[in-house]
Amino acid sequence: MAIAITLLIIEIGVPHVTGDESLSAEIADLWPSYGAYILSFVIIGIYWANHHSFLELFRRTDHTFLMLNVIFLMTIAFLPFPTAVLGEYLTEEAQRADAVTFYSIGLLLPAIAWFLVWLYARWRGLLVEGLDPAYVRLATFQFLISVALYTAAVAVSFVEPWAALAVCVGLTLLYLLPPRRPVFTAGADDR
Amino acid sequence: MAIAITLLIIEIGVPHVTGDESLSAEIADLWPSYGAYILSFVIIGIYWANHHSFLELFRRTDHTFLMLNVIFLMTIAFLPFPTAVLGEYLTEEAQRADAVTFYSIGLLLPAIAWFLVWLYARWRGLLVEGLDPAYVRLATFQFLISVALYTAAVAVSFVEPWAALAVCVGLTLLYLLPPRRPVFTAGADDR
Amino acid sequence: MAIAITLLIIEIGVPHVTGDESLSAEIADLWPSYGAYILSFVIIGIYWANHHSFLELFRRTDHTFLMLNVIFLMTIAFLPFPTAVLGEYLTEEAQRADAVTFYSIGLLLPAIAWFLVWLYARWRGLLVEGLDPAYVRLATFQFLISVALYTAAVAVSFVEPWAALAVCVGLTLLYLLPPRRPVFTAGADDR
Amino acid sequence: MAIAITLLIIEIGVPHVTGDESLSAEIADLWPSYGAYILSFVIIGIYWANHHSFLELFRRTDHTFLMLNVIFLMTIAFLPFPTAVLGEYLTEEAQRADAVTFYSIGLLLPAIAWFLVWLYARWRGLLVEGLDPAYVRLATFQFLISVALYTAAVAVSFVEPWAALAVCVGLTLLYLLPPRRPVFTAGADDR
Repeated sequence: MAIAITLLIIEIGVPHVTGDESLSAEIADLWPSYGAYILSFVIIGIYWANHHSFLELFRRTDHTFLMLNVIFLMTIAFLPFPTAVLGEYLTEEAQRADAVTFYSIGLLLPAIAWFLVWLYARWRGLLVEGLDPAYVRLATFQFLISVALYTAAVAVSFVEPWAALAVCVGLTLLYLLPPRRPVFTAGADDR
Repeated sequence: MAIAITLLIIEIGVPHVTGDESLSAEIADLWPSYGAYILSFVIIGIYWANHHSFLELFRRTDHTFLMLNVIFLMTIAFLPFPTAVLGEYLTEEAQRADAVTFYSIGLLLPAIAWFLVWLYARWRGLLVEGLDPAYVRLATFQFLISVALYTAAVAVSFVEPWAALAVCVGLTLLYLLPPRRPVFTAGADDR
Repeated sequence: MAIAITLLIIEIGVPHVTGDESLSAEIADLWPSYGAYILSFVIIGIYWANHHSFLELFRRTDHTFLMLNVIFLMTIAFLPFPTAVLGEYLTEEAQRADAVTFYSIGLLLPAIAWFLVWLYARWRGLLVEGLDPAYVRLATFQFLISVALYTAAVAVSFVEPWAALAVCVGLTLLYLLPPRRPVFTAGADDR
Repeated sequence: MAIAITLLIIEIGVPHVTGDESLSAEIADLWPSYGAYILSFVIIGIYWANHHSFLELFRRTDHTFLMLNVIFLMTIAFLPFPTAVLGEYLTEEAQRADAVTFYSIGLLLPAIAWFLVWLYARWRGLLVEGLDPAYVRLATFQFLISVALYTAAVAVSFVEPWAALAVCVGLTLLYLLPPRRPVFTAGADDR
């Protein structure tokens, strides 16, 4: 993830200006790329932090769990590409809807992959013991909501790209709030 | 390996469309690149997981062993390049065979390098003690089969690229199955 | 940071020469890129070293502190881009001012972000106990001066790009001096 | 170093062929790039291994030592660029000498930087105690010889590029031999 997050900047190409054009105008015109860079950087950063803290909740792993994690990481490592597409075409009206749709799909994929990782871990009993069932239900609900909202963003992007982007940004801002700490049932808090 | 796996996405360039062309069509046309990305990502991921678990089987190392590992890593780090070639030329009929041949060679090289690492370790007695000889023979056989199948894929690619690609994909799916756990002989299981 | 620092070289493109042009002249003409590479490499290296040594001064973290650190890392990861712009346009007189302004902003952003990380840690009492208040005041003053000087470099760059660049280089040379070691108050030196 | 070594492949661009051109011929024509990739990969790999094993010989560090190490890493991180230049122009007779000169300089720089790191550590007494003085002299001599041979390669490249390249390759092959183990004086062997 550290690598995927750093590669984001590589996708912004140095603008080419000749003689009497203004470099500062060209640099300013890249604002959609900067916006996409910041959004994707923060999103990967949040996944990174959450991934780390959630890994503590897994008591053990198995082969399928590892493979699901590889798929999750594959979707994260893919993000620089839709980010670059969004940065390049956000300001071109004819392509904006397509670019936002692609970017929303790019965000939907890790949400789905992470949801599958979580569901599988829950189903196979890979979570640590003593987790409060209410907390587990809430986390499941929260991950499902993320999948639903990114799916909604994909759908909305066909007709109203800016609204879809607002959903993506809003969801990210929500995730910037301090995460709920895992709750353990009484009797297990001495672990 | 973490870096090689993440660099795969960099090789997919943002498509350039003008005015009335469709960005979504261009993005969809990149499906061979996505396919190559997924295949190479999974293959490197599998090597990574296997490399980690096999490293536990090596009791000690020597200079030649380290150099063979450098060569193995060199073949892994090379993979993003044939992956990019495959993604770009898979759909161009005139170039398909060449692209698949190159990609199959790209997969054959790490298989050979890994086989050499394993053979050398076995020959020089670098493996941990107590490994069941039958397990060692089976692992040797399995690595040899991989080399044979990738060699076959290279050969087949000259006449039937899609069949060669199917061999590569099929072999990868096989490796996705849970690996056989190392077997230790009785008396050594208390290590 | 290790990744951002290594990516700097990727932004220098291989020059394209044909038949009777001189490759060595083209390579020599890239000197602004080499200069920008060295300057940014050293700056990221200094931040890296300082970040490591300052992290020892933080007793504990909270969510906002982590988010401020993500923002700081985002500004560091952004640096290869203004570095590439500076390398490409430093020798073009019409674009020099714009390129230096952009680069100075690129250096100002991590200085501001780091200052915020520090201010927040100080405000919320995240620093280890026993730090000499005079040392804390001095560090705060030093970080503020950096922000002020980079801001000055941005301002100066509009009228005198070379002078602005001299400020950036000079500040970097200053930071190359051995950093002041943290001072602890008596009674806390047994930690 | 892990990152610099992996970035080498990024510098090899996917060849562009149209309709009736042969992709395999284009891929084969990239052999200088593959050769440069392998040479630089092995060279960085050797530095990496040596750097690790030599770090054990340093008892303590100081600020200047760390800064010299940053400079050493900067020269390593720079290598992908002359490697790419060499790969692109080795087969163009008019540019060959320039490309080999630049590549030899690219190899000379880390040799010099490492020599400075070693000299400084020796001068300031940063080496662990008990190292056999004869071993220290031999290591110093060996590093100096490397600097001398790469300098010779730079000089030779102006008149006979292939000979200069042979020096670089030969020196690398020499380094592939098992390194001499550090020798400790009697009485210090119980550390």
